[in-house]
Amino acid sequence: MKISVANIILISIMLVTLPCFVRSQNITSHSNEYYNEVADSIINHALKYQTGYKWLSELCEIGPRLSGSEESIKAIFWAEEKLKSIGCDSVWLQPVMVPHWVRGNTEKAYISSSKLYKGKELSVASLGSSIGTGEKGISAQVIEVHNFEELKNLGDKTQGKIIFFNRPFNETIVNTFGGYGDAVDQRFLGAVEAAKVGGVAVIVRSVTSRYDNVPHVGVMAQIDTVKHIPAVAIGLIDADFLSEALKKDPGLHLTLKMDCANLPDAQSYNVIGEIKGSEFPNEVIVIGGHFDSWDKGCGAHDDGAPCIQTMEVLDFFKRLKIEPKRTVRCVLFINEENGTRGGIEYAAYADTTKEVHLAAIESDRGVFTPRGFTVTADSLILDRIQSWLPILNLSLIDYVRQGYGGVDINQIRNIKALIGYDPDNQRYMDVHHSANDTFESVHPREMELGSAAIAILTYLINEEGL
Amino acid sequence: MKISVANIILISIMLVTLPCFVRSQNITSHSNEYYNEVADSIINHALKYQTGYKWLSELCEIGPRLSGSEESIKAIFWAEEKLKSIGCDSVWLQPVMVPHWVRGNTEKAYISSSKLYKGKELSVASLGSSIGTGEKGISAQVIEVHNFEELKNLGDKTQGKIIFFNRPFNETIVNTFGGYGDAVDQRFLGAVEAAKVGGVAVIVRSVTSRYDNVPHVGVMAQIDTVKHIPAVAIGLIDADFLSEALKKDPGLHLTLKMDCANLPDAQSYNVIGEIKGSEFPNEVIVIGGHFDSWDKGCGAHDDGAPCIQTMEVLDFFKRLKIEPKRTVRCVLFINEENGTRGGIEYAAYADTTKEVHLAAIESDRGVFTPRGFTVTADSLILDRIQSWLPILNLSLIDYVRQGYGGVDINQIRNIKALIGYDPDNQRYMDVHHSANDTFESVHPREMELGSAAIAILTYLINEEGL
Repeated sequence: MKISVANIILISIMLVTLPCFVRSQNITSHSNEYYNEVADSIINHALKYQTGYKWLSELCEIGPRLSGSEESIKAIFWAEEKLKSIGCDSVWLQPVMVPHWVRGNTEKAYISSSKLYKGKELSVASLGSSIGTGEKGISAQVIEVHNFEELKNLGDKTQGKIIFFNRPFNETIVNTFGGYGDAVDQRFLGAVEAAKVGGVAVIVRSVTSRYDNVPHVGVMAQIDTVKHIPAVAIGLIDADFLSEALKKDPGLHLTLKMDCANLPDAQSYNVIGEIKGSEFPNEVIVIGGHFDSWDKGCGAHDDGAPCIQTMEVLDFFKRLKIEPKRTVRCVLFINEENGTRGGIEYAAYADTTKEVHLAAIESDRGVFTPRGFTVTADSLILDRIQSWLPILNLSLIDYVRQGYGGVDINQIRNIKALIGYDPDNQRYMDVHHSANDTFESVHPREMELGSAAIAILTYLINEEGL
Repeated sequence: MKISVANIILISIMLVTLPCFVRSQNITSHSNEYYNEVADSIINHALKYQTGYKWLSELCEIGPRLSGSEESIKAIFWAEEKLKSIGCDSVWLQPVMVPHWVRGNTEKAYISSSKLYKGKELSVASLGSSIGTGEKGISAQVIEVHNFEELKNLGDKTQGKIIFFNRPFNETIVNTFGGYGDAVDQRFLGAVEAAKVGGVAVIVRSVTSRYDNVPHVGVMAQIDTVKHIPAVAIGLIDADFLSEALKKDPGLHLTLKMDCANLPDAQSYNVIGEIKGSEFPNEVIVIGGHFDSWDKGCGAHDDGAPCIQTMEVLDFFKRLKIEPKRTVRCVLFINEENGTRGGIEYAAYADTTKEVHLAAIESDRGVFTPRGFTVTADSLILDRIQSWLPILNLSLIDYVRQGYGGVDINQIRNIKALIGYDPDNQRYMDVHHSANDTFESVHPREMELGSAAIAILTYLINEEGL
């Protein structure tokens, strides 16, 4: 820890004046100056060594981490080893059975009948959980719609057709998660709604704010009572091409060929590593993200780097000799993308253990520059966390506000605070669930400042309790 | 403007309850709800049409805008035409004589004598204002130093040597302008200090936070009483290579060849466009940036896109039929990078005009996601601007704090508030003054949210006064 002359003078003054101040405070608390110094030392370490960013390059080398895949298991062992090498007090794997969807080798869409466009291939990718088309593929006319109401109003025109959902991402919503939420029903429920009206397959405009031709995948719902039909995402350039082509040749036929499949559930694991609390080992602060990803790109922003941010918190504590009073536990949840099985499994454990879960912080919104934390907690607890803003602000946290925690930590019951790390999100949907989500899309300083922000909040909760 | 049912109900309630509220306020003010609606309409327009981003692609097509260059004049005419096409009440060019430095065709550094490294070329670029080396070039031994004190302590060892300043960018400073400020003395004063101790040329480690081999240029000082010597910036990879090479072969010789030159001052212009105030035409709000750039990349972040953000403010006002009460004037200052002549010239005009300059907002820190505004003003004025934070926050402005305005607007005397737009800066030094500063490095949403933020603040100052 860096102690300047000015700080030594300050500390000397405090030694005289502090006791009367301390009496009116929680006896476990330190001075703000002390907390600022700890925060500064964490930030300095993060930006100087950029350890997490280096770990990310190793993780991305392994490949993407689709639940049930060989790479996901390799990555799990990598994380286990890394947490051991940090010097955690314990590291373990919590077994979780996960859905095992495979993309296969073929995902292809081309215009198979048209005077104008025959042979034109489109940039598509199968959606997670989709069934395949069989070897012959599916050939049919295409009908473009923009929402489920428009679909229903088409009457029997949709029978035997490929339904093309083409409602664009709403760029006018400032928070890009809002734009995502505004369009994602087409991807998630498109196949169900299309099947209900006799559709034979679905093409969905990628839910993204970047104008390129990269398809953005993601999970789709399947309901037992509705026929399962195949579905693909399509890149924006080809979505616009197809829309224009349909205006000129409404009778064109498209052929889809996909050999993706749903296999039996596979064995997988949550990866858990912790530093035991020195005073209140029974009180647990969970920090984590989801370790699975989609299989395009390497799941750098979603959610490899965010997972590593929480692993790095433990590394900061060890390197800077910060001994937490309360247990700080990093949990890398498997299978958030298509099942949330890891989150559910950990919550089941939390229900049965005698430990008290104090708070959980999830990082699952990319690793762009820090902006804030969103908190699900009682107002008085929120006030308490907000009172730490001047310290958190050193790592560029500008707000702490009531809001969502995260898909995985939200499974935990009986916990005082569920906290979501909330970095800048303007670029997130550019890369989300796509081949754009690479190591190169991560900025080292932006990532490391986030690691520091999460570490500072973890440290403060650990010291002050909630 | 979007008016929802909820807003109609709200407005109906306000019609009953507002009068008593209004009485206690400045009579020129509108309700916060009204301001929120205006702000929303600006943000929606910005994100929907992304007009400024399209303009940026046109500007980058013209090329970089080094003061005195042909491209800079082309760009000035482009901006003049664009401001006219917006529908400004007046558009004019303010003549400014500017320094005319030219890079020439040659900027080359290679190891000319060494058993180990002979022939190795290094990635360098001449610094602005540097003299050339003459056709033969300069060949000499190289001495690496990290600061001016170390240089002075070398005694006569520096005589006849090429001085290599290699102090790295300080990554631990959270605000990257801090890291820049921490290292830039080497670039700005390196040649002066080296010449004082008999150095014959200077190589400076690029002041950047991105680890690549792209040299980052910028202006260097020249003092009449100290011999002028040539100086180049070197890419980080080659800076590290050279440092390692010097350890193994301290006697190696480097040859520098540069044909850059300082020509006589050239005719140039500030570009000015304005919408006249309907109630107080004599009260002026200046918004702008500097229109010149370095000649690597296209000066997208520095400072093409920021200039366009302020042009776009006028476009929003025209498209959304916002008629300002006070005059809103966009000034694109020429020659900030190597002379500030445009800023000085405009300030001279401001001194003599009978207009009152109320406030100036400068955008010159890139066009990343908005974070805040920094203000040089009396505390009560700062309080007033801070009271608008809930409205500004719609465009992601989290703070308004006492701080720097900008190089160009700071030339203006007799003005109530000098305001700097302060977006996220984590990626700024990656591109600053280098070939990395391209159209592709700009994100449309990040840029447009900044345009909206500046427009909202301009609108509020215009409505409320200061």
